[in-house]
Amino acid sequence: MNYRFSDKVLALKPNAIREILKSASDPGVISLSAGNPAPDAFPVDAIREISARILADNPIGVLQYGVSEGYQPLRDTLKAYLKEKHGIGTDDDELIVVSGAQQVMDLAGKSFLNEHDVLICEAPSFIGSLNTFRSYNTRLVGVPVESDGMSMEELEKALDANESAKMIYTIPNFQNPSGVTMSLGKRKKLYELALSHNCLIIEDNPYGDLRYYGEDIPSIKSFDTEGIVIYSGSFSKVISPGIRVGFMCAPKAAMAKMIICKQGQDVHTTMWSQMICNEFMTKYDFDGHLGFLRDLYRGKAALCMKLLDEYVVPNGITYNKIDGGLFIWCELPACVDMLDFCRKLTERKVCVVPGNAFLTDSELECHSFRINFSTPTDEDLTEGIKQIGQLAKEVI
Amino acid sequence: MNYRFSDKVLALKPNAIREILKSASDPGVISLSAGNPAPDAFPVDAIREISARILADNPIGVLQYGVSEGYQPLRDTLKAYLKEKHGIGTDDDELIVVSGAQQVMDLAGKSFLNEHDVLICEAPSFIGSLNTFRSYNTRLVGVPVESDGMSMEELEKALDANESAKMIYTIPNFQNPSGVTMSLGKRKKLYELALSHNCLIIEDNPYGDLRYYGEDIPSIKSFDTEGIVIYSGSFSKVISPGIRVGFMCAPKAAMAKMIICKQGQDVHTTMWSQMICNEFMTKYDFDGHLGFLRDLYRGKAALCMKLLDEYVVPNGITYNKIDGGLFIWCELPACVDMLDFCRKLTERKVCVVPGNAFLTDSELECHSFRINFSTPTDEDLTEGIKQIGQLAKEVI
Repeated sequence: MNYRFSDKVLALKPNAIREILKSASDPGVISLSAGNPAPDAFPVDAIREISARILADNPIGVLQYGVSEGYQPLRDTLKAYLKEKHGIGTDDDELIVVSGAQQVMDLAGKSFLNEHDVLICEAPSFIGSLNTFRSYNTRLVGVPVESDGMSMEELEKALDANESAKMIYTIPNFQNPSGVTMSLGKRKKLYELALSHNCLIIEDNPYGDLRYYGEDIPSIKSFDTEGIVIYSGSFSKVISPGIRVGFMCAPKAAMAKMIICKQGQDVHTTMWSQMICNEFMTKYDFDGHLGFLRDLYRGKAALCMKLLDEYVVPNGITYNKIDGGLFIWCELPACVDMLDFCRKLTERKVCVVPGNAFLTDSELECHSFRINFSTPTDEDLTEGIKQIGQLAKEVI
Repeated sequence: MNYRFSDKVLALKPNAIREILKSASDPGVISLSAGNPAPDAFPVDAIREISARILADNPIGVLQYGVSEGYQPLRDTLKAYLKEKHGIGTDDDELIVVSGAQQVMDLAGKSFLNEHDVLICEAPSFIGSLNTFRSYNTRLVGVPVESDGMSMEELEKALDANESAKMIYTIPNFQNPSGVTMSLGKRKKLYELALSHNCLIIEDNPYGDLRYYGEDIPSIKSFDTEGIVIYSGSFSKVISPGIRVGFMCAPKAAMAKMIICKQGQDVHTTMWSQMICNEFMTKYDFDGHLGFLRDLYRGKAALCMKLLDEYVVPNGITYNKIDGGLFIWCELPACVDMLDFCRKLTERKVCVVPGNAFLTDSELECHSFRINFSTPTDEDLTEGIKQIGQLAKEVI
């Protein structure tokens, strides 16, 4: 059979990270390539309790069809939480539950992007989202990330140069993969530029609750008076990724089409998962759990940076200090072949993610790689970073 | 803000049934409009047991990220089950788990359909799938359904007339909404026609296990030697719809792109849900449960047809007898305005689904409506059908 694929998917390749993860799961391999929560980060006891209770008290509610917009009590909880804690959501906004934040990118892509339309994103940016936009045959235009976020000069140039640019995709907090947080000034500038170019913003904030140092910076959505920001949140890093629950807060007028698209994708998000999140947020100490996670990951982040300073930086690799999130972005000197370096690391049973995977075009020149510190044990993290330092010493 | 929606979604309207269901949930309304399992159809005790066990034995497995293709033990279980029970699956096929069968339509639509490509379907057909295909700006061409399935003459004409027809979408067993089952002869003819026109078939089989009378007919996928059939199955009608688990068996070469698209949509299906299905299939009496469901629904189907014969048929409405599934398709005489009839029923607090919702163009002439007998209690079913008969007596 000659399969006649759509133009949209012809050039699609599997997410390089998820492919790397498959080999990284071999025993004996130290994986610094994942973005998984630490195994001890899950509120297992609470989830056991909640699951038993909802299946005892309301089994039909757990097992029967739900509505596409999401489990109403969870929607109410999230609306109140976002409003109170982050100043997010106006009367013109709506909030729906989705099957992980990844679905926000798909629904927004389907609802707004014609083939060959331009989406502007940070360069580098999260490969999962980029692949989703690619699956609508979107043209990705990357704007370089500076230490305080996207370059606003380059963003303005990109907007001026691309009339079909309909969306700007940004991860303002502890960006994946760069670890960078966008300054308040740049958030406001980005909002102004988007508004003046009739452009939507997707604000993807899966890591916002995982700040280990410094003060929270207001989200772009919190000053969205004109209805141009689609805010995406997730429980994957703060409760569990395996339950697949995220949420989206967006202008009602923009949301309506996305809800229809969600109906057509998976009808609704798993009821059990939605109820777990709602019960955990309302009947347990959610803020306390976030504090526990911050303490856990602050320790791992500090260890990771200390090890990098000790073993890696002296051998010629630089990296961005982080205030939160799960990732650190390391840069090799321009004279070193980054892909070859990552390959050699793999031979030494240490997996990192080659940085070109996060670019709008993986053929572009890249000297960086991403490491993750949330998933490995402290012992593996130590051994892995020592190996990186050792290899750097040999080849740089 | 002037939202610049994509061409794909401009004409999209919410699924009419799910909108009707919202009003049908008012207290005092008898809903014959749903497609939900009966509340007593869920294996609640088993699910309670399984949930407690997997959260005790393997909490990290339930809560951590999984792979996009699905939970491997469930994939293995399903592969063996389909092969043994239905003769489905060759070495050239792959099976993946999806978040409800609706996702199969979305992944297939994205992977194969360019905008304005033609998809051929039964007329009438399942509105949920039609809406999914519409969300890719697909042109739907309907082929009339006869008492033994799609008209093969009309199908051949449609294939000849539409060179961009890349897919035929069919629900061969107890079709939603017509209740019709496709004969073996027509299944073979459909396969031949698809093959000779370089066309894929999506065989959607959510109701196949719910046969109340007669013998199973081999699935089209069971004679797919050439790799042109995408087979879609679901746990929604046989375990629970709220858990959102379906599966797809398709040629490996066609599957690869769909897996990438699934990664971009929801990364993977909820782990808890997948584990519930696998444990239930392997450690409980799954076949016994299917027998229980068949007995339950056979009783409700028989009651429904008896009531129709007694109260409705004598007043001028005809219907198709069914051998399985959840739906019965009723036809008004051509002189009666069907939409007006459904509206008047709603005033009498009885909800059915107007048949035009299931057409490729809801403006086409239609004299039918769909009723469901699985969700209402026997008392509500009786009262609802009496009301239909009473209204028919008054207006026909």
